[in-house]
This record gives sequence, structure tokens and C-alpha cells, in this order.
Amino acid sequence: MPNENTYIYGKHPVEELLAADPSRIQKIFIKKESSKGFDLINNLASQNKIPVSFLPGPRIKEFAGEDAVSQGVVALIGEVPFLDLEEFLASLDLKANPAVFLLDEIEDPQNVGAIIRSAAAFGFAGVVFGKHRQAPITSVVFKVSAGAAAKIPLVRVVNLNNALEKLKKAGFWTIALDQNAKNNIWQVDFEMPLCFILGGEAKGVREKTLEKADFTYRIPMERGIESLNVSASAAIVASELARRKK
Amino acid sequence: MPNENTYIYGKHPVEELLAADPSRIQKIFIKKESSKGFDLINNLASQNKIPVSFLPGPRIKEFAGEDAVSQGVVALIGEVPFLDLEEFLASLDLKANPAVFLLDEIEDPQNVGAIIRSAAAFGFAGVVFGKHRQAPITSVVFKVSAGAAAKIPLVRVVNLNNALEKLKKAGFWTIALDQNAKNNIWQVDFEMPLCFILGGEAKGVREKTLEKADFTYRIPMERGIESLNVSASAAIVASELARRKK
Repeated sequence: MPNENTYIYGKHPVEELLAADPSRIQKIFIKKESSKGFDLINNLASQNKIPVSFLPGPRIKEFAGEDAVSQGVVALIGEVPFLDLEEFLASLDLKANPAVFLLDEIEDPQNVGAIIRSAAAFGFAGVVFGKHRQAPITSVVFKVSAGAAAKIPLVRVVNLNNALEKLKKAGFWTIALDQNAKNNIWQVDFEMPLCFILGGEAKGVREKTLEKADFTYRIPMERGIESLNVSASAAIVASELARRKK
Repeated sequence: MPNENTYIYGKHPVEELLAADPSRIQKIFIKKESSKGFDLINNLASQNKIPVSFLPGPRIKEFAGEDAVSQGVVALIGEVPFLDLEEFLASLDLKANPAVFLLDEIEDPQNVGAIIRSAAAFGFAGVVFGKHRQAPITSVVFKVSAGAAAKIPLVRVVNLNNALEKLKKAGFWTIALDQNAKNNIWQVDFEMPLCFILGGEAKGVREKTLEKADFTYRIPMERGIESLNVSASAAIVASELARRKK
């Protein structure tokens, strides 16, 4: 099932994708009225033979959506490519103790985008998604990820529990973040391949998934506040991993 | 200038606010068709003489908005109370090395809500907002904060630069998060009153604000990813503070 057409917008995300993976961009639209300041985009586009059109501001707004800050530039990109789990596992060097996030039904595209961005920022090897009840990789996800969705392997699986089994067999230890856990993340041994399971906004990690996890850990916090935004949890775990590896 | 009517929705946020600060709630609406499972809300409401109405599902949806997961309950709350900076400073014990966030034109309500939630979760003393170009404390902010907006002092100031001066005079050290900074946050000495300045989504901390800050620090990350979602940065800083205090 192909994705909808995906647009990314904003000067920086477009520049980044042009530099990192120009073949992903099919066409670029620049606001006619403010076509200055786009030299880098124009140069990279012409080097890579990507067509550029100049359109009136309101047309640009149509692509980016009313709420989006397009900064006068929008790029049409093809489908965001997903790996399947076998390909992904085959590509990894397990000795380097890679880490991945596994998203257990996270439905908010802003959260998904922010998680992908944190994962990329702190050197995670990939992000694993289910196919169901999961925000698809839309323009919003891409934008919130600030282009990071093009820089880190995204893995889509049909069944999350099977995926957990396969990750374990490959050598990963699976850790569910759960506020009822006894141990806290400052106690995790990060020196092994790790899969952190993040649960959906309202319900957390599902019971069935919790049972499959090797460990559960919580993020310690003040009394009376019992959970964080899931993208905040992801950022904390990912940065802690990076800090310890230093 | 009074806020718009603010509703909070979701079983848990309503229960939490009822327990923490019932005087804030003016009225509660529960979905007629699924009025079971609301015993705690009903009891707390009746103890606090808060009227409860039972309405058909579609009416509840109108309050909460199409996208919101109301879980069948919505509460009408009054204006979110703001402190002014002087009141707030007077309420603090500087010897306990309090920490605050100062938001420099953060316009996305989801980010504002998530920042408030992380601040509360990790024991920050408050969150300071400007009045301009700043997402107001709407229902979305409140909901994303999962009720934390009712649990941590929110301080509104007219001029952020004046506010920075006052914070400094009161004994705070001011730190701007900036990806171009030389030092990284793992090097911050957290044993003093600290004000972390967070910049807007696209532009980061403004030049003028950077100049006012005592220090600038960056969050170290992989090459090619140059920034995080601002609520991710906030979560990392806040949790690092909590970790070090342990």
C-alpha cells in the first residue's frame, strides 16, 4: 500500500534532504514573491536535476497546509522507504551494541516525528513500527522529525510481538518503559544491543507487550506526576544512552 | 485579558485536577452512554459541590474537539492562573537551588504542554513565559501537560529580557540552550539556582536573549542532526537535573 504524496517544507529540512539523499526529492516548489535566499536549494536541485517551480505564496500554502511554516519552500518526496526487519537486522553490527526504539501503537504524528528525531540525534540504529494503530509517516511526521526520518532506518513490521521475538533472537535485550516498573533507567546496563519499547499516549505499553519484554524500567519522577509525554521519555532514554557511551 | 474557556478532557487529567485543586473546576460533563467507571470523579465532584452533567457522546466531542480522546469526560476549568515574576521569586527557597524554564517565543502548544509536564515531573520550580508570540495556555496545552499545568507555577512576564535581569538579580544563573555552544550540558554545575532558556521551534533562542544569558550550552548529538524538538531538549535537561540531584 503506497503512502499518500508526502511533502516536506521549510528551508532547512529541504536543504538537509537535498544534501543527504537528493534522489528522494521529486520536485521543489519555491514561493515566487520571496525567491531570494534559496541559492543553496537551487544549486543542489540543479546539480541533481530536480525540477524547481516558482509558485505564488497561496499555492505553496496549499501544499504545506495552513498551519505549516513553509518558509516559502516545499518539496514533493516519494514514499518514505521502510525496511523490513530481516533486512534491518542483517545490516547491523551487533558488536557495536546498537539501540532501537519499538513503537507500540503511538498514534500522534508529532510524537512519532519527535521520537524519530531524538533517535537519529543520539545515534540509534533504527525505529521499528507496527502497521496498525500507528501514525503513518506523513508530512507532519517528516516535518517534526526535521528531516531525520530520511536519515535513520525506519522498520515496519506486521506483528510487534513477532518482531520482539526476532529482535531477541538476534541478540537484543528488550526493555519496556513503564512507570510501574521497580527499576529505573539510571540503572540500565547500556553495553548490549537494546530495544526500548515505547507505549501509546494514553495507555502506555500494552499488557501483552509488557509480558514479552525482558525488563521493565521506569523514568524516576516527582510524586503526583506519573508519566511524561512519550517523546519526552524517548529523548531522555536516547540522550542517556549517548551520555553513557561517551 | 481573560483566557478563552478552557476544557480539560480525559479521565485521568480530570481525576488529577479534582484531587489536586478542585476549586479550579467549574463543571464536569460525562458521556451518558458510558457513565460507568466514573465513581471517583462523581465522588470527588460531589464532595467539592461541582455540578456534573450527563450528555450524549457527540456533545462531549464538541467540547473536547474532534481529535481529542475525551474518554467520555470533560471538565470546564477557569482561567489558568499565572503568577507574576515578583510573587514567584518571593515564593522560592533559593537555597534549595530551584530550576526554571524560560520559554523564548515557543509557539507550538504541544511543545509548551510537554515542557510544562517535564518541568513538573522533574521538580522544576516553575515555567516562565513571555506574553508575545507565545502559545497561550489553551486546552491543548493543558491536555498535553496531562494536568501538570495545574501543578507547577506558571509565570507570565511582559518582557523576557527584563525577566532575565530580575532572575539574575534574585540569584539565578541563566543558561541558554544553543547548538552552537562550545560546552555541553553534561558539564553544567547543577548545584545553583538555574534558569534554562529554551528557544522557539525554527529559530532557537533569539540573538538578543543569547547575549543576556550567563552561559550557553548545547546538547551533544550525532553529526548531521543539529537540533532536537524543543520539548525533547527540555525533557533531557530536566531529567539530567533530577538524576544529578539523586
